[in-house]
Amino acid sequence: MANDAPLGVFDSGLGGLTVVKALRALLPQESIASFGDTARLPYGTKSPATVYQFTRQCLRFLMSLRPKLLVVACNTATALALTKLRNDFDVPIIGVIEPGAQAAVEVARHTITKRIGLIATEATIASNAYPTTVHELDPQVQVIGRACPLLVPMIEEGREPTDPIVELVLREYLAPFVDLEASAMILGCTHYPLFAAAIAKTLGDRVQLIDSAKQTALVVRAQLDTMNARTTSSDGRLTCYVTDQGQRFERLASRFLGEPIGQPVWVTPEMLEE
Amino acid sequence: MANDAPLGVFDSGLGGLTVVKALRALLPQESIASFGDTARLPYGTKSPATVYQFTRQCLRFLMSLRPKLLVVACNTATALALTKLRNDFDVPIIGVIEPGAQAAVEVARHTITKRIGLIATEATIASNAYPTTVHELDPQVQVIGRACPLLVPMIEEGREPTDPIVELVLREYLAPFVDLEASAMILGCTHYPLFAAAIAKTLGDRVQLIDSAKQTALVVRAQLDTMNARTTSSDGRLTCYVTDQGQRFERLASRFLGEPIGQPVWVTPEMLEE
Repeated sequence: MANDAPLGVFDSGLGGLTVVKALRALLPQESIASFGDTARLPYGTKSPATVYQFTRQCLRFLMSLRPKLLVVACNTATALALTKLRNDFDVPIIGVIEPGAQAAVEVARHTITKRIGLIATEATIASNAYPTTVHELDPQVQVIGRACPLLVPMIEEGREPTDPIVELVLREYLAPFVDLEASAMILGCTHYPLFAAAIAKTLGDRVQLIDSAKQTALVVRAQLDTMNARTTSSDGRLTCYVTDQGQRFERLASRFLGEPIGQPVWVTPEMLEE
Repeated sequence: MANDAPLGVFDSGLGGLTVVKALRALLPQESIASFGDTARLPYGTKSPATVYQFTRQCLRFLMSLRPKLLVVACNTATALALTKLRNDFDVPIIGVIEPGAQAAVEVARHTITKRIGLIATEATIASNAYPTTVHELDPQVQVIGRACPLLVPMIEEGREPTDPIVELVLREYLAPFVDLEASAMILGCTHYPLFAAAIAKTLGDRVQLIDSAKQTALVVRAQLDTMNARTTSSDGRLTCYVTDQGQRFERLASRFLGEPIGQPVWVTPEMLEE
């Protein structure tokens, strides 16, 4: 049965908009309610207990909009909290890790080294969520991961991929992957697609980049088909909710989304309290 | 009358420990309750409304420990919220901006250019709090400010001041100050003293660095003397409270404090809610 309810997309801040962008490209008729916890971002340096609590509060808000499906469009929140969150809410919840891991395994399993590279936040790396997911898919595939704490602030500062500082930082962070001959590289943070071209240039042609945003959109479409829940009449509206008041979100958001963004709706942190 | 109550020191995360370090050096007998809002850090990219709300919640917690004086050891919170906070609580509250501004004006007012440099977070720069404070002290002194969003994550990543990436970033951020012949440079974020040597090297000998941590400790001592409230019997105990559970604080904190730090007390974000 067709279902005109929105998709609820959660992120700790801005990065989830790369997933929103992929969803809008693939499913232009679906309406989306996008939530960014901009008052408490970033999640990537924080503990599992805090990330779970904050994410649950935000998803509870999204549930008040009666979505047909939730997307946790934040690698850190997916890594640290998705399993528990699926017990908390009564709609399907799709994370960004399994789609990216699946695509990377497809690339790596037919190579000699069977190695996947992973760049992500400190918390995502520490969680071991990607290696665990990859090993469930194929125990022979190895994941070599590295936390890259400067990438998010460099992207949010508006640095271009050709900036000398960006090039130097990428050379340092990515050196181990070049040496280890990984065949696929997972961009394990939803910010990183903005530096995809520079990452590809640093790694060279033989490494295939895995952009979880696009993979996640494909999984969302398959899930809607399984549920027979694609919209027939929704007008593809996008509404953004944020927890911090201020111009920073509007200033940065259109770069992630690839289209102009209207003024977001401010949800005060008090409104999330339990 | 002697007063053995603790000093309450607030910061958005870790940087305030440079102020705690300066306080412990100058006032070793005073006990300190230090609070870091590590679950919601950083404040430097957030709006005045959010920074005020979060800081008020944290100070309310510190007030439950009955301190004789509060220090807002965070430039962003001082810039965006100090004036309002002084109406909310019934103890003296000392911020980090006025002490640093005062020291910088003392250096600059006798020079030909009368220029002060300022490096700080996005939110502190946008607030104009330093120029406003400096102009009240001496209308002829100019402040040239620049946001340096990569410094905090580089410091928290544990990079050494001699790291080539740190050197390149500092050369870019500090170039305008070299050209403009500022005589003093305010380190307008409590993280920055960890890079003081590298900043001094990049700027050259003619620029005097102003470390607000030390200046703030001097103002706290003067305030205690004015109140006749120095301790006579306190044992100089330090207790740290944080809002995020996890090892990250302990791993990084001793670098800011300059001495080993015990396990912090975890205050859940729920405990701060109003």
